Amino acid sequence: MLNGPNLNLLGQREPTLYGRETLVAIETRLVAQAKAGGHELVCAQSNAEHVLLERIHAAPRDQVRCIIINAGAWTHTSIALRDALLGVAIPFVEVHLSNIHAREEFRHRSLLADRAVGVICGFGPLGYEFALRAAMAEADRASP
Amino acid sequence: MLNGPNLNLLGQREPTLYGRETLVAIETRLVAQAKAGGHELVCAQSNAEHVLLERIHAAPRDQVRCIIINAGAWTHTSIALRDALLGVAIPFVEVHLSNIHAREEFRHRSLLADRAVGVICGFGPLGYEFALRAAMAEADRASP
Amino acid sequence: MLNGPNLNLLGQREPTLYGRETLVAIETRLVAQAKAGGHELVCAQSNAEHVLLERIHAAPRDQVRCIIINAGAWTHTSIALRDALLGVAIPFVEVHLSNIHAREEFRHRSLLADRAVGVICGFGPLGYEFALRAAMAEADRASP
Amino acid sequence: MLNGPNLNLLGQREPTLYGRETLVAIETRLVAQAKAGGHELVCAQSNAEHVLLERIHAAPRDQVRCIIINAGAWTHTSIALRDALLGVAIPFVEVHLSNIHAREEFRHRSLLADRAVGVICGFGPLGYEFALRAAMAEADRASP
Amino acid sequence: MLNGPNLNLLGQREPTLYGRETLVAIETRLVAQAKAGGHELVCAQSNAEHVLLERIHAAPRDQVRCIIINAGAWTHTSIALRDALLGVAIPFVEVHLSNIHAREEFRHRSLLADRAVGVICGFGPLGYEFALRAAMAEADRASP
Amino acid sequence: MLNGPNLNLLGQREPTLYGRETLVAIETRLVAQAKAGGHELVCAQSNAEHVLLERIHAAPRDQVRCIIINAGAWTHTSIALRDALLGVAIPFVEVHLSNIHAREEFRHRSLLADRAVGVICGFGPLGYEFALRAAMAEADRASP
Amino acid sequence: MLNGPNLNLLGQREPTLYGRETLVAIETRLVAQAKAGGHELVCAQSNAEHVLLERIHAAPRDQVRCIIINAGAWTHTSIALRDALLGVAIPFVEVHLSNIHAREEFRHRSLLADRAVGVICGFGPLGYEFALRAAMAEADRASP
Amino acid sequence: MLNGPNLNLLGQREPTLYGRETLVAIETRLVAQAKAGGHELVCAQSNAEHVLLERIHAAPRDQVRCIIINAGAWTHTSIALRDALLGVAIPFVEVHLSNIHAREEFRHRSLLADRAVGVICGFGPLGYEFALRAAMAEADRASP
Amino acid sequence: MLNGPNLNLLGQREPTLYGRETLVAIETRLVAQAKAGGHELVCAQSNAEHVLLERIHAAPRDQVRCIIINAGAWTHTSIALRDALLGVAIPFVEVHLSNIHAREEFRHRSLLADRAVGVICGFGPLGYEFALRAAMAEADRASP
Amino acid sequence: MLNGPNLNLLGQREPTLYGRETLVAIETRLVAQAKAGGHELVCAQSNAEHVLLERIHAAPRDQVRCIIINAGAWTHTSIALRDALLGVAIPFVEVHLSNIHAREEFRHRSLLADRAVGVICGFGPLGYEFALRAAMAEADRASP
Amino acid sequence: MLNGPNLNLLGQREPTLYGRETLVAIETRLVAQAKAGGHELVCAQSNAEHVLLERIHAAPRDQVRCIIINAGAWTHTSIALRDALLGVAIPFVEVHLSNIHAREEFRHRSLLADRAVGVICGFGPLGYEFALRAAMAEADRASP
Amino acid sequence: MLNGPNLNLLGQREPTLYGRETLVAIETRLVAQAKAGGHELVCAQSNAEHVLLERIHAAPRDQVRCIIINAGAWTHTSIALRDALLGVAIPFVEVHLSNIHAREEFRHRSLLADRAVGVICGFGPLGYEFALRAAMAEADRASP
Repeated sequence: MLNGPNLNLLGQREPTLYGRETLVAIETRLVAQAKAGGHELVCAQSNAEHVLLERIHAAPRDQVRCIIINAGAWTHTSIALRDALLGVAIPFVEVHLSNIHAREEFRHRSLLADRAVGVICGFGPLGYEFALRAAMAEADRASP
Repeated sequence: MLNGPNLNLLGQREPTLYGRETLVAIETRLVAQAKAGGHELVCAQSNAEHVLLERIHAAPRDQVRCIIINAGAWTHTSIALRDALLGVAIPFVEVHLSNIHAREEFRHRSLLADRAVGVICGFGPLGYEFALRAAMAEADRASP
Repeated sequence: MLNGPNLNLLGQREPTLYGRETLVAIETRLVAQAKAGGHELVCAQSNAEHVLLERIHAAPRDQVRCIIINAGAWTHTSIALRDALLGVAIPFVEVHLSNIHAREEFRHRSLLADRAVGVICGFGPLGYEFALRAAMAEADRASP
Repeated sequence: MLNGPNLNLLGQREPTLYGRETLVAIETRLVAQAKAGGHELVCAQSNAEHVLLERIHAAPRDQVRCIIINAGAWTHTSIALRDALLGVAIPFVEVHLSNIHAREEFRHRSLLADRAVGVICGFGPLGYEFALRAAMAEADRASP
Repeated sequence: MLNGPNLNLLGQREPTLYGRETLVAIETRLVAQAKAGGHELVCAQSNAEHVLLERIHAAPRDQVRCIIINAGAWTHTSIALRDALLGVAIPFVEVHLSNIHAREEFRHRSLLADRAVGVICGFGPLGYEFALRAAMAEADRASP
Repeated sequence: MLNGPNLNLLGQREPTLYGRETLVAIETRLVAQAKAGGHELVCAQSNAEHVLLERIHAAPRDQVRCIIINAGAWTHTSIALRDALLGVAIPFVEVHLSNIHAREEFRHRSLLADRAVGVICGFGPLGYEFALRAAMAEADRASP
Repeated sequence: MLNGPNLNLLGQREPTLYGRETLVAIETRLVAQAKAGGHELVCAQSNAEHVLLERIHAAPRDQVRCIIINAGAWTHTSIALRDALLGVAIPFVEVHLSNIHAREEFRHRSLLADRAVGVICGFGPLGYEFALRAAMAEADRASP
Repeated sequence: MLNGPNLNLLGQREPTLYGRETLVAIETRLVAQAKAGGHELVCAQSNAEHVLLERIHAAPRDQVRCIIINAGAWTHTSIALRDALLGVAIPFVEVHLSNIHAREEFRHRSLLADRAVGVICGFGPLGYEFALRAAMAEADRASP
Repeated sequence: MLNGPNLNLLGQREPTLYGRETLVAIETRLVAQAKAGGHELVCAQSNAEHVLLERIHAAPRDQVRCIIINAGAWTHTSIALRDALLGVAIPFVEVHLSNIHAREEFRHRSLLADRAVGVICGFGPLGYEFALRAAMAEADRASP
Repeated sequence: MLNGPNLNLLGQREPTLYGRETLVAIETRLVAQAKAGGHELVCAQSNAEHVLLERIHAAPRDQVRCIIINAGAWTHTSIALRDALLGVAIPFVEVHLSNIHAREEFRHRSLLADRAVGVICGFGPLGYEFALRAAMAEADRASP
Repeated sequence: MLNGPNLNLLGQREPTLYGRETLVAIETRLVAQAKAGGHELVCAQSNAEHVLLERIHAAPRDQVRCIIINAGAWTHTSIALRDALLGVAIPFVEVHLSNIHAREEFRHRSLLADRAVGVICGFGPLGYEFALRAAMAEADRASP
Repeated sequence: MLNGPNLNLLGQREPTLYGRETLVAIETRLVAQAKAGGHELVCAQSNAEHVLLERIHAAPRDQVRCIIINAGAWTHTSIALRDALLGVAIPFVEVHLSNIHAREEFRHRSLLADRAVGVICGFGPLGYEFALRAAMAEADRASP
């Protein structure tokens, strides 16, 4: 599970928009849920695009079977992330905490969505749980 | 849970796009899951816009606390559905079986999404389960 | 006088936007005003597009001389209503309760307005009274 | 052969634009021509979108091999009709009485045309005859 | 009641579009109607933008409770008029003699409409009467 | 009957798109059908715009009563062809072998269509037969 | 002959763009040429829109048979000038000193041109002479 | 003086739009006027783009000092003509018989105008005379 | 320093947007600051475009070395002001009290900004002080 | 005070556009001016987006009361910077050395400006001084 | 190797843009280079679109294995050339002497580029050499 | 020679699109070719924008005479790279492995191309060789 820029602020930043739970708390909960589902979940957050790019590049070596990504602001601007995800050819699930359709015009277009398995937005931390379930289903489908 | 036009074809129509499970099977499963979660789920599908509009109009009388809606093709064309949902002022969750961002340009804009609690697309029948969980959380929040 | 989708909710739905008077109350008042003006006013509301279409089709048979229409959400989406109105070639007056120019972008374009006698919006139920006066003037002009 | 909204007015409505022949007259002639060509033609017109949708849904059961459709105003607004036609995966021929390119800007885009076998417009009732011939050729190709 | 550029030509200019009654005749009639309704109506027309701006600036001093404005061509070009109306914070009613939606594309957007109480167009001099009634209702609401 | 650029390749070029019949074969068949219908059909194809322009200029002298034109790629780019057709004021029928609505965006706009009697596309060589029938009907109407 | 804003600067302002001759010199020359052609030419320049509007309003009283107008910057922004010219229904010739097509994008659209007899731009003071000749021809045609 | 496609039809084609004088008559008159002005005018019309291109290529050899061009329909579509004119670096005057701003949207943009000395449109054959005078002035300026 | 329409309302109009200080108070303070900086500042406000145009025309005579302009609403609509400023070829500084980027879409484009020395917006009356300092620096640069 | 990519080149890079003073020189001067104004100014420049993001994240901890930001090229592309600034909810002043309105189209839109206190551009290093004064005023307002 | 309109002017026309070498000189050099690479290169230039179209039509007969094309101005306007190239189904390399991205907006779109093997622009005659090498590589790949 | 994000994946990632050769192999070959041509080529690839920016900043110090850049995804999003290249004022050649015109719409616009010497795309690793030859020619031109 990859989180993009500013998501380290979770729990502090604009709580009415993003909720009060920290990213670490969410990650801990999801790692446990993944384990319960018979999968291993590895988490990373970065404010540097190249760190995420290189995590994605490393994914095939690490035998990652599905990527959960909340690219934050880069969702709308980073073709490089799109290229990395397509380059490694691993299915990915796109998730957003807030409802991006209810925000500024420039957040309505995602550069990732048309190549994602699916997209979830607006449900806060609950959305990550949906993404995890979808990713586990996807991983099971690819190699049962 | 409301389903719009052509969704009665589910399981027959374009299975690579929409999956092989019928709508009745999905509805049956979700009703059970809702019951297990301490909620009652009522389902309707219609190919007639006025039937859905009138189901929405009836929702406050029926003390519905959250609506799950897959408006299908009307997602992109029916301002009347938007008005009905806003008119009854009940929170709603938008769900799509296919990934609408990976399809025709005219399916990228939803007339409902900016007023929904959140949006889920691309996960097939699994998406309805996520929508149910989100709707139950929403209903619990409104009147715990 | 024809009213489109969701207008049956009048008086309940979003009262700050649409006012507290019900559609039946408005219709009753207008029927009386029309009678006082020497005209007969017939009213219909429907959430089904085909019902309005067929009312319009029937208008020449019923010797209707002017139509007052608040097509609600269909104002912006229904070319079929436009075609029906042009098809019967009866002058019509377009009316809206709210000020559509102060609302969402997609409510700014009307598919009827350029062929209407005139358009009234933003004055709540008072707008129907204006529409009635304009329609009676129009009817008198056509066949004094 | 399916006809959409307002086409029941044919012969009365705007005769300079649509001609003087009624739809029933056209249907009768085409049924005879189809029979002469060794095919059975079934005709329906409706001002209700759900009626057309459900006729299309029923087509595979009825072993329809090609659909002729004049969706009228819905050509430009109904994604639901498109979905129904694609859902049943039966080839279809699009026909219009008037030349839609010579009319309002919003009639220039068809939501069906890119998936049709072909499109005919501007030739009045003659266009239906062309559509029938094309549909019979299509049906023969599919199952000679 | 403020009238903008070229409206002094009323009754002479393009009578099929604007009618044969002069502006003075309309003003006289409306002043009487206002008086009958227990209100005072003051009228001004100018071909100079600054004259209208300064009339609007003076309105709070004159305890004007509602402004009726037909800004004519400036409706579509004068942000300064919009600013003046918003600056004095007096409700206003927008009126047009002709149906602006049936005319050139550049007349379809009004720079005032989204902040008006409501908009009336296409009814000729009758529109001013509707505007007066709406303005009196508005004035009564503000200070009954 | 005029055919524009590259149509001499018919039968060789992209057969899945344009069919296997050559233009000469089609022309021969149509000349015979025209004769059977009591009309004379003259055919020309050119890859040079000026040749088509001059054929059109010559048409009034030759007492041509209707033109069938498949302008190919020029459909979307040649205002000169449009001007020639309007200049001679002879009605024309527009025909395309492929369904231009199912191809590149820049093939969706025709510079001829709004002034044509009607348009036929997507039916392969059969489309020329429809065009011929429509042209003969048109010619008969003009001078029975 | 009417000249709009900033044209009083002619001969001083941006001489590489507008030339070195003053407006008074041009007017003097044109008045003489008009006289030589058997016509009377009256000239006015103003930086105030209302002055030009009122000159146009006065034109029918003064039996003006053709107006030459260089509306300068207002060409692109003043619908009021357009309305005044259409209101008095006197033919007009549009002239610009500079080539407006070679300048900023917002100078490419004229709000007058589609209703003018014709348009001349880019020839400096010579353009006024052409406009005069065209206006005299127009005046002669209207009342020889 | 170069004339583009369909201008050979002048005098026959759409006389209400283009006038009744033939191109040959205009050319004869202008050649005489040029001679009277101490200049030699050479005229050519072609319906073939390459003929005009090659006439322009030849112009430097022929010591042409200014080109008058009515490119007709190519004005709006031929970048090749623009390139030829810029390639030979001879000033040119653009002229149109009709007022292109009063016609179809696609005639509003000229691919030549921003590089022309100036543009004249809407004055019929008189426009060529203006163009000749402007061209002679231009030629005199370049080499007095 | 030139101020455009409605700025005479400063201190009264929409104080949350424009602050509580009057224009006269600001002008007085700036005149003093200019004097302290060894410069003379002359101030004018007008609701009439022609008054501002003529002040700008007079600037070269008055040996103005830099213009500070808050054109208010005309910033977005007056090409005439742009022309006047370019015509006199005096550098100018553009200033706005409110942050125009945070307001309506039509306030985002300035017709002056690309030719200004620089632009300041959003700082209320403080912005005028910045503009004065920038203007004095500009004036010193031009003639130290 | 934060400076974005390439601003370390200041004084070397394109001096006609950005001036000859280095960023270090500007920073030194502003730190002194801030001190004189009773404030502490901390400066940072980075060519790495994540460095700026993390400086902004740290700002609340460091009790920063106002941010001055010249985001350079990222002004037009980095939604992540916008999110960081909104996330920490500290007011910020946007500044640019060059006049961005006089440059390429893609520099006209700022992703920060609508949420900034105000924007300054075109005044070179002087703009930073204005920004500092505005920031100090803002900081004083927040906590006097 | 095919060259389009105006390329015969090479070496004379706008040398700062296109260089001083003539097309014949370039062709001669490339023919030699092709020979050295074991291939035969045939060259043609034409100002007539039909000549190029027919050269392309003839290419399969001549067993051409790769086409090098500099379509000049037609790059941006000729769908017919695109159709011819696709019709013969021979791979082609697109080359331009100047950098089309640094020129007018209407030169930024190529109607050929998306179907080319690749595109080279901005390197002057050197670009033809690259195109030749790429074409030879392509030809070798197709039939080694 | 600079390579942007994801180009380290070359040879692994999407081989049908980008080929099977690794970047290191290409770099090694090009370094040798440069040496053979009497030039020194230095290569760098990074997934971090700031690394490329700082390599470009260092180029003048290193006396780089021409830059070859394949900015990958950043071609379409990084104004910062454009600014860095313009800031150091060293000519650069843009190269892409795939044909960007045949891919997604958002890859059609390059933020670098209009300021590049030239652009090469679609030829795979061969494109780098062309870029090297062009860069060496450019370097020789600058300082022979």
